[in-house]
Amino acid sequence: MRNIKITLEYDGRRYAGWQIQPKNQTAKRQTIQESIEKTLQKILQEKIKVIGSGRTDAGVHALAQVANFKTHSKIPLEKLQKALNALLPEDMVVNKIEEVGPDFHARFQAKSKLYRYTILNRRYPSVFLRHYAYFYPYPLDVNLMRKEAQYLVGRHNFKSFYTSDKKIRNPVRTIKYIKIKNNKGLITIDIEADGFLYNMARNIVGTLLEIGRGRFPQGSMKKILLAKDRTKAGPTVPAGGLCLIRVNY
Amino acid sequence: MRNIKITLEYDGRRYAGWQIQPKNQTAKRQTIQESIEKTLQKILQEKIKVIGSGRTDAGVHALAQVANFKTHSKIPLEKLQKALNALLPEDMVVNKIEEVGPDFHARFQAKSKLYRYTILNRRYPSVFLRHYAYFYPYPLDVNLMRKEAQYLVGRHNFKSFYTSDKKIRNPVRTIKYIKIKNNKGLITIDIEADGFLYNMARNIVGTLLEIGRGRFPQGSMKKILLAKDRTKAGPTVPAGGLCLIRVNY
Repeated sequence: MRNIKITLEYDGRRYAGWQIQPKNQTAKRQTIQESIEKTLQKILQEKIKVIGSGRTDAGVHALAQVANFKTHSKIPLEKLQKALNALLPEDMVVNKIEEVGPDFHARFQAKSKLYRYTILNRRYPSVFLRHYAYFYPYPLDVNLMRKEAQYLVGRHNFKSFYTSDKKIRNPVRTIKYIKIKNNKGLITIDIEADGFLYNMARNIVGTLLEIGRGRFPQGSMKKILLAKDRTKAGPTVPAGGLCLIRVNY
Repeated sequence: MRNIKITLEYDGRRYAGWQIQPKNQTAKRQTIQESIEKTLQKILQEKIKVIGSGRTDAGVHALAQVANFKTHSKIPLEKLQKALNALLPEDMVVNKIEEVGPDFHARFQAKSKLYRYTILNRRYPSVFLRHYAYFYPYPLDVNLMRKEAQYLVGRHNFKSFYTSDKKIRNPVRTIKYIKIKNNKGLITIDIEADGFLYNMARNIVGTLLEIGRGRFPQGSMKKILLAKDRTKAGPTVPAGGLCLIRVNY
């Protein structure tokens, strides 16, 4: 059996996320995983199980999601990549394909992930970014957002930023860094962590926006983190602004 | 009467271009101009005629199309911009709005226009650029394209690059510059001219690609220009790669 690692770019808009989640079992939107498995099965003519580095939620995009699968097929990799890109829907592209050792596991071996949330902070929206950035026309104190974000860096219980999905999970994660850039109102918030709880990135950004807008006072982030209470944090910002940028192994 | 100048960004995909052209009279797709006039009339409650700097063809995008219209309304500009952006479809945004002198005319006073054509030149497509760049996976000699493009700069008869729309037009235009940039396979071709004939930018790019790919030999551009014959030039590249970047007054 060959073990194949693929790197995937996708526009999450049409999808119910990477994988069917319990509460989505009745949803009619396809998942990314289903779409890739179906296409691989068509090409390779065998049952394929694709393992992703982790779930991306419904509507979230990816620049470089990583997945792997095992196959008996001897098809050359370049040919397989071309066939995939010809048969996958146009909102999904395989950027890279490589053969890896039999032990490589896209989920278990992922060391960290980098997510980027993009905000368009100006008075009028953008046509070309409308599906990829959250239009937020209110004045923001970006420096204060940067300072407050630093309280989240390190190993913490992130229960305050975790939208419960009814499974009991260990809410402790390690955030390696949070970097906030502002390029003439196009604000990107990069968060690298060893793992993300359900909606964690979007709840952190929603809280940062409340702080930046002055609705939560300076010092709020520390208090919210320590409260371990989801109701203390800000709202979940829309999925379209979020993109999985990189998975580190 | 106030004379109002607006700067517009739009995603051309859903539209039959700026203005209904003779051959599109039966088309069902709306035009940009219709969409703006309808929205302005709804807000201002009077008949409005919008003058664009020029037509953009069906499917072509704009980052900063310029238009003007006259109105009796005394509505503050900021309020009008907000109302427009709230009521226009989400693939159309008013970036800027200003009051200009009674003589300003978006078409007659346009001195030059800058169009950008974007090509994605690598082995696999891009999800996020799929509607805004022409995916062209064949190797290109970009330096040769740059050299050949220079034959078009200046005042010339561009009949070879003009898809006839059955109106007799003067085919002489002045190209101020053509700048070709290549950023890791993302190629942009900027063309600034005092005016563009129907499909002129896309026919120039189609010809440059034939040269870059080696299907037209070095020296072709000069011969094609002098031939004044559309059949000698390359094909019309897809509309989605083209964007009106700026109109100079």
